[in-house]
Amino acid sequence: MRRLRVNYTVRGKEIQKDLEVADGSNLFESLISNGIYVPNTCGGRHICGKCKVEVKTNQGIDKDEERFLTDTQKTAGIRLACFVKVDSDMEVRVPAEKESNILTEGMYSLRSMNSRIKKRSLTLSRPSLQDQRDDLKRITDEIGDVRVPLGVLREISSILENNDYKFKYVIRKGEIISVEPPNSDKVYGIAIDIGTTTIAAYLEDLSSGEKIDVYSDMNPQKIFGADVITRIDYTIKKTDGLDELQKAITGEMNKIVDEFCKRKGIEAKAIYEMVIVGNTTMMHLALGIPAKNIANAPFIPAFTSAIEIKAEEIGVRINPQGYIVSLPSVASYIGADIVADILSSRMYEKEEISLLLDIGTNGEIVLGNKDKLIACSAAAGPAFEGAEITFGTGGVIGAIDHVDLTKHPIYTTIGNERPSGICGSGIVDAIAEMIKFGIIDATGRILSKDEISLDGDILNRFIQYKGEPAFLVDDNGICITQGDVRQIQLAKGAIYAGIKVLMKEVGIEFEDIKRVYIAGGFGNYIDPESASQIGLIPKQLTGKVIQIGNAAGAGAIMALISDDEFKRAIEIAKLVEYVELSNTNEFQEEFMNGMYF
Amino acid sequence: MRRLRVNYTVRGKEIQKDLEVADGSNLFESLISNGIYVPNTCGGRHICGKCKVEVKTNQGIDKDEERFLTDTQKTAGIRLACFVKVDSDMEVRVPAEKESNILTEGMYSLRSMNSRIKKRSLTLSRPSLQDQRDDLKRITDEIGDVRVPLGVLREISSILENNDYKFKYVIRKGEIISVEPPNSDKVYGIAIDIGTTTIAAYLEDLSSGEKIDVYSDMNPQKIFGADVITRIDYTIKKTDGLDELQKAITGEMNKIVDEFCKRKGIEAKAIYEMVIVGNTTMMHLALGIPAKNIANAPFIPAFTSAIEIKAEEIGVRINPQGYIVSLPSVASYIGADIVADILSSRMYEKEEISLLLDIGTNGEIVLGNKDKLIACSAAAGPAFEGAEITFGTGGVIGAIDHVDLTKHPIYTTIGNERPSGICGSGIVDAIAEMIKFGIIDATGRILSKDEISLDGDILNRFIQYKGEPAFLVDDNGICITQGDVRQIQLAKGAIYAGIKVLMKEVGIEFEDIKRVYIAGGFGNYIDPESASQIGLIPKQLTGKVIQIGNAAGAGAIMALISDDEFKRAIEIAKLVEYVELSNTNEFQEEFMNGMYF
Repeated sequence: MRRLRVNYTVRGKEIQKDLEVADGSNLFESLISNGIYVPNTCGGRHICGKCKVEVKTNQGIDKDEERFLTDTQKTAGIRLACFVKVDSDMEVRVPAEKESNILTEGMYSLRSMNSRIKKRSLTLSRPSLQDQRDDLKRITDEIGDVRVPLGVLREISSILENNDYKFKYVIRKGEIISVEPPNSDKVYGIAIDIGTTTIAAYLEDLSSGEKIDVYSDMNPQKIFGADVITRIDYTIKKTDGLDELQKAITGEMNKIVDEFCKRKGIEAKAIYEMVIVGNTTMMHLALGIPAKNIANAPFIPAFTSAIEIKAEEIGVRINPQGYIVSLPSVASYIGADIVADILSSRMYEKEEISLLLDIGTNGEIVLGNKDKLIACSAAAGPAFEGAEITFGTGGVIGAIDHVDLTKHPIYTTIGNERPSGICGSGIVDAIAEMIKFGIIDATGRILSKDEISLDGDILNRFIQYKGEPAFLVDDNGICITQGDVRQIQLAKGAIYAGIKVLMKEVGIEFEDIKRVYIAGGFGNYIDPESASQIGLIPKQLTGKVIQIGNAAGAGAIMALISDDEFKRAIEIAKLVEYVELSNTNEFQEEFMNGMYF
Repeated sequence: MRRLRVNYTVRGKEIQKDLEVADGSNLFESLISNGIYVPNTCGGRHICGKCKVEVKTNQGIDKDEERFLTDTQKTAGIRLACFVKVDSDMEVRVPAEKESNILTEGMYSLRSMNSRIKKRSLTLSRPSLQDQRDDLKRITDEIGDVRVPLGVLREISSILENNDYKFKYVIRKGEIISVEPPNSDKVYGIAIDIGTTTIAAYLEDLSSGEKIDVYSDMNPQKIFGADVITRIDYTIKKTDGLDELQKAITGEMNKIVDEFCKRKGIEAKAIYEMVIVGNTTMMHLALGIPAKNIANAPFIPAFTSAIEIKAEEIGVRINPQGYIVSLPSVASYIGADIVADILSSRMYEKEEISLLLDIGTNGEIVLGNKDKLIACSAAAGPAFEGAEITFGTGGVIGAIDHVDLTKHPIYTTIGNERPSGICGSGIVDAIAEMIKFGIIDATGRILSKDEISLDGDILNRFIQYKGEPAFLVDDNGICITQGDVRQIQLAKGAIYAGIKVLMKEVGIEFEDIKRVYIAGGFGNYIDPESASQIGLIPKQLTGKVIQIGNAAGAGAIMALISDDEFKRAIEIAKLVEYVELSNTNEFQEEFMNGMYF
C-alpha cells in the first residue's frame, strides 16, 4: 500500500513534524494514533464537530461536516479531521493544547499519619565460621519473618557487604521492598486523581506527611475521545486499543514521576508507593483490565475492589519493588474517585445527613450519614465540562468562567485572556443571569426581544445563531444558544432527579439534609447561587453548600499517607449502596420535573 | 579490532558452524561463551587438561600444555583449547557431548496427596440490572476472599462472558492463578533436581499424583566449569556472568517444559508449578541471586529459605501465573538437594539413627534421627564423578562402570560400548579389586610387580603412565595411576573424616548407626562391597546400606505433589545442624586416618 506523508504543525508552537500514513487513512485517526492531540468529544464519529484542523485538500465538504463550519472557516481551509481522507501528502495545522486550570486543592483531615512504607535502620553482626547464618536469616532473626521479593534478595548480599552490615531497609505490609545504604533517608509517595479530562498528582513525604509538590495535566487519553464511553468503544473496536489507552495513562504516570524528580531533585527509587483514584473506567484502563461491560447494560465492571500491584507490573518507574494502590470503586458509575470524595468529606462518620455532588461528565450523587450511604450516577452528559455546548470549552486559560449582566464587560475569563469559549461555571452563570433577567422562561425557552422589557444593551445580545435564538456573551460571537440551554436543562434535570430518587430511597425531605458537599473542579468554580438559580443545586438546599475542591485527590492523599484511611476507604466502598437510576420508575418523572427552571 | 572466523565441527554429529570472534581471543572462552560444549573441570584455567580439541595452528605447545598430551595426540593436531589463541581463521573439531546415563529413579512414599494446586468448577448467576455485582465479586461471594493477580483480573470478564458464567479456576494458596473454560481439566507440575553435572526432571499429574514422564540432561552450566566454585568465579569475574549462568538453567527449564509438552501432547499453561532442588549454589544461580560469598570463608549464602516466585519472574514459560518453588537449604554446602534426600529417606522421623551419604563433587553427610539431625559437607573433590582422574569420566555411555579382575574382560561399560574412560563406580571397583589382590598396600601405594605374587595376565597390567606406576584396566590404555589412587584416598578420607566428626558431635559409635542411605547417581551405581573395601563406607557399616537412588528428585516430587511434604522439608531444614568441618579440630586427624585402606 502507498504510504503518504502528513506534515503537521501545532498552531502557536514550534512543533512541526512528518507522519507517514497509509493512503486512504482517516486524518483524525492518523493524528490521534500518533499521539497528536485533536480536540474532540466523540472519538471521530462525526458527532461533536470539535476536531477542526487547517488542511489543504480538494475533497468536497459533506453535508454532515458543513453543519459544523462557518463560511469564514470554510474559506480559511478549516475542516473536521474526522471527515478528511489522507489521499495525498498533506499539510495540516492543528490547534495547540491550551494550558489548563486544573483544580488540585482539596481539603482533608487526617486522624494520624500511618504510611504503609517504613524505612528503618539495621546493624547486623558480621558472619564468621562460628556464625554462618545466611544473609536473609541474619535479617529475619532481627526483625522477624518478612517476605522478600526476588529483586531484593538479589541485592541483599552486596548491600550488607558494601556497608559493613549496617544498612536501611524499607518495609511495606510485612514485605521488604528495598535494601539501601545507611545514608538513604527519604520516603516519598504519589497520589494521583485520574480524571476523565484532567489529572492531578501530589508528591508526599511519607515520613512527615508533608505535601512536597503538586502537578496537573490533561489526561492524555483524551485523544481517544472525551468521555469514557468513547474510550471504551475504542478498546473494543481496536485490537490493541486497551493497550494504547493503558500506555497513555502509565506514560503519564511516568511523566509525573519524572517531573517531580526533576523539580525536587529526588530519585525515582525513593518513591515507594502511588495511590490512584478515578472513575471505575479509569481504574480499569490504568491497570489494563478490559472495561467493555461498563459501557452497556447491565453495566458490570470486572472488579471494584482495591488493587495493590507492583508498579513494574504496569511499567511505572518508581522504586522497582514499589506499589501501585488503587482505591476501591462501588459500581461502574460510582468509582474510586467518589469513594475518595466520601473519605475526605468525612460525611461517612457524621450523624447529620449530607449530600455529596461530584459533577463532571456524570453527576455522581451520594446521600447519607454514618449509618447509611446511598449513591447514584446521573448521566448529566459532559455539558458542564463544556462539551456539547456550542462554544463550550473546559476550564482552560481564556474560558469565560463568570457572567454578570450588571457589569461591563459582562464576563471574566480564566487568566484574563481573550475569551476562547465558555466553561461550565460560565454557562451556569450565564443561564442563571438569563433566568434572573427573564430572558429564559420556566420551560427554558429563550424569549424574543418583543416578549421582554429590558434596556438597549442587553437587547443587542438577542441574536440568531445558525437559525436558533441565542444570547450573545462576548462581542466576538460567543453565545448561549437555545440548544445549549436545553443541554443544561437535561443535565441539571438528571442531577435533580438523581437527588430526589436517593431522598425517596432513604425516605427523607430536603430539610433533613444538613450539608451539601460539592466536589471536583466544576463544583469548585461554579457560583453556588447561580447553581441554585438554575436548579442544579435544589433551591431548598441553598446555604448548606460547602465546596470541598478536589476531594478525590484529597482522599487519595489520605489513603497514601495513612493505611487507616485506606482501610476506611475499603469500608466505605462496601457500605455504599448503589442505585441504578435506569432501574427506577421515579427517575423519569423527577427528571421531567427537574428540567424546569 | 579484527574479527576472525572460527569454523567448528562437532565430532560424530552433523553440526558445523561459524563463529565470529575478536582477534587474539582465547579459543576455549570463545567456544564456551558461544554455548559450545568443551569438556573441562577447571573453567579454562590450564589445570584439568580436559578441553582437548582438534585444531590446525602453528602456535607452539607450552610446557604446561604438553603434560596433558600424548605424542599421538600432538601428531593428530590435538590441543588444549584453553592454551590456544585465535590468531587467524581457524577450523576446530570439538568432541560430541555423550549421551548420559543419569539416575532419575528415586524412592518415595507419600502420606497423602495434597497438591497446592486445585482446579475447580464454578457456575455464577448472570448479571442483570438487579444484580450489578462486578465479575470479581461474583466469584469471591461464592468462594470467599482470594487474591487475584493482575494477569488473571484481565482475563476474568471474557472467560465469564464467553462461557456463560460457567468456568474453571485454579487456586493456589488462596490465590486464583488461572481462569479457564469449563472443559479444561488437567493439572500438571514439574519437579527438577538440578545437579551440578546432571539434571533430572519429572512431570507429575497434580490431581492424581501420577508420574507422567521423566527427562534427564546434562546441566548446561557445565560449559562454564565442572564445579560450583569455578562457576561462582565466573559470576564474579564476568560482568554478566551471573545472568549467563542463570539463563543456562532457566533455558534448560524451558527446554524441559517444551520436551514434556511435545512428548505428552500437553500445553505449557496446564503446568502450574515447578519445584526445584539442588545444591545451595544451584538454587542461587537458578534464581539469579549472587552466590559469591558461598565460595570463600566463612561461606555465607544470600538465603537458605524456601522461595516461591512466579515462574515468569525468571522467564520460565509454564502457566503465566504459575510458580517456581525452591526447597530450603541448610548452609552453603548442605543444599536443598540434601533436604530433599532427608525428606524422601524419612530418616527424620525414625527412632533409629541413620547415616545419609550423597556423594558427588562434595560428599554431603547427614547423621541422626527424629530428635536430632546433623550434617556436614566433606570436600571430596569431584574424583568420584571422574574429574581429576586421568581417564575419569562421568556416567556416560562407554564409561567403564564395573571392574572384576576374575572376569574376562575385567570390566563392563555403560551401554556395552567401546570404553571411553572410567566413571566413579568403575574407579571404586578397580581400587577395591587392587586392594583385594594386594596390588595396593594400606598406604595406597601401587606395588611393583616384584613385590607381589600374581599370575601372568594381571602382571601385564602393571605399567608406567607418564612416569607413574599405573594399573591397566582396558587394553587401549585406560589405566588407574598412582595419582588417581591418591585422589580417591583424599576423597574417601574426607568422607570418612566427615562421618567420624558427626558421630563424635552426636556421641555415638558405628554400632549405633542402624542404616546407611546412599543417595545420588554415583551412590546408586557403586557396588556397596567395593565401597566398603576401599573404606568409602566405613567397614563397620557394611550390610546396613540402602541405595535410595535419586533421593533428591524423589524429595522434590514429594514437595510438589504434597504441601504437607513441602512443609516438612521446611521443618527439616530448620532442624538440621550444620557442622563446618574447616572449623573442627578432629577433622584433620580423622582425615589422615581415613586415607589408609
